Amino acid sequence: MYEGVIQDLIDELGKLPGVGPKSAQRIAFHLIESETDVATKLAEVLVEAKQKVRFCELCANISQEQRCSICSDPKRDLGLICVVEESKDIAAIERTREFRGLYHVLGGAISPIAGIGPDQLRIKDLMKRLADPGIREVILATNPNLEGEATATYLSRMLGTMEIQVTKLASGLPVGGDLEYADDMTLGRAFEGRRRVN
Amino acid sequence: MYEGVIQDLIDELGKLPGVGPKSAQRIAFHLIESETDVATKLAEVLVEAKQKVRFCELCANISQEQRCSICSDPKRDLGLICVVEESKDIAAIERTREFRGLYHVLGGAISPIAGIGPDQLRIKDLMKRLADPGIREVILATNPNLEGEATATYLSRMLGTMEIQVTKLASGLPVGGDLEYADDMTLGRAFEGRRRVN
Repeated sequence: MYEGVIQDLIDELGKLPGVGPKSAQRIAFHLIESETDVATKLAEVLVEAKQKVRFCELCANISQEQRCSICSDPKRDLGLICVVEESKDIAAIERTREFRGLYHVLGGAISPIAGIGPDQLRIKDLMKRLADPGIREVILATNPNLEGEATATYLSRMLGTMEIQVTKLASGLPVGGDLEYADDMTLGRAFEGRRRVN
Repeated sequence: MYEGVIQDLIDELGKLPGVGPKSAQRIAFHLIESETDVATKLAEVLVEAKQKVRFCELCANISQEQRCSICSDPKRDLGLICVVEESKDIAAIERTREFRGLYHVLGGAISPIAGIGPDQLRIKDLMKRLADPGIREVILATNPNLEGEATATYLSRMLGTMEIQVTKLASGLPVGGDLEYADDMTLGRAFEGRRRVN
């Protein structure tokens, strides 16, 4: 559609997640028409991020150092490990300020359709970490979908033989949501997990 | 939220049009976690596009040469000029394959709120082009919104004194749309511009 390098830019932008052909075109024109330093800055930061970012040797969270800022924070509770699918889940949990322990990134969830079995996930590394007798609790915080639930079930069975307490995030009605619009599964879980308030 | 360069990347991505904080985070993680050449390719293409792309000296369309591929195409009808707001409008019109003339990019539309008057648009250049006696028709293809309509009205008045035919794109019901869901303005325009079919 467009000439050489303009189309190249649109094509590359279109490969990004959540960016369709129309958005890619819009972003490309924005970059071409804006001041030179906007595009240059983005290009620089891209290359720099790619060079500097690596994965924490302990929890596999993305990090600029060998150990991520959470694993190297002396104030964190070393007795709690929260197991998540991806690094971005850590950011979401950190925003709640509810958890002061460490994390473990699996790198995905069990999905037979996508060909991801337990061996493709960082489960062996998790087992090694759990050999530490100081660990009191493992919190399974995989996504509340089919793959995440399967992964949580698999892990809870594996950890069942150990002396460590295994917990799972609560399922239920989202705060601020309408009961009327909740899907059956969520409402069912909310009933199943109901708590005494008096 | 994130460490140094990761947050820098998210911030830069978040400045792009249509990319909110969540999308920026998703794209940043995608780039960090993907093969190195995905990010590098994007950075290269960005810098290259920024260096190579300029504006056609005749119609102001974006181009890699002094004249864009349309202005330098000997098969185009030099007697027709289609006036658009932005380069991307040209791509949209080219996709229809309905128009074989040349274009003229105004670089925006008259908008008193945004402080854009006729002098900020490439109207003088248009007038210079229209001095050519070979030009038979000017098609006003500004956006069918307040600013675009104001610009079309302004241009049609300016061109009214000339010997050139001035036309405007038809307004009406979008193809594939439902009459029931059409807004009042569009339905009104569809009535106003109704055509005999027998």
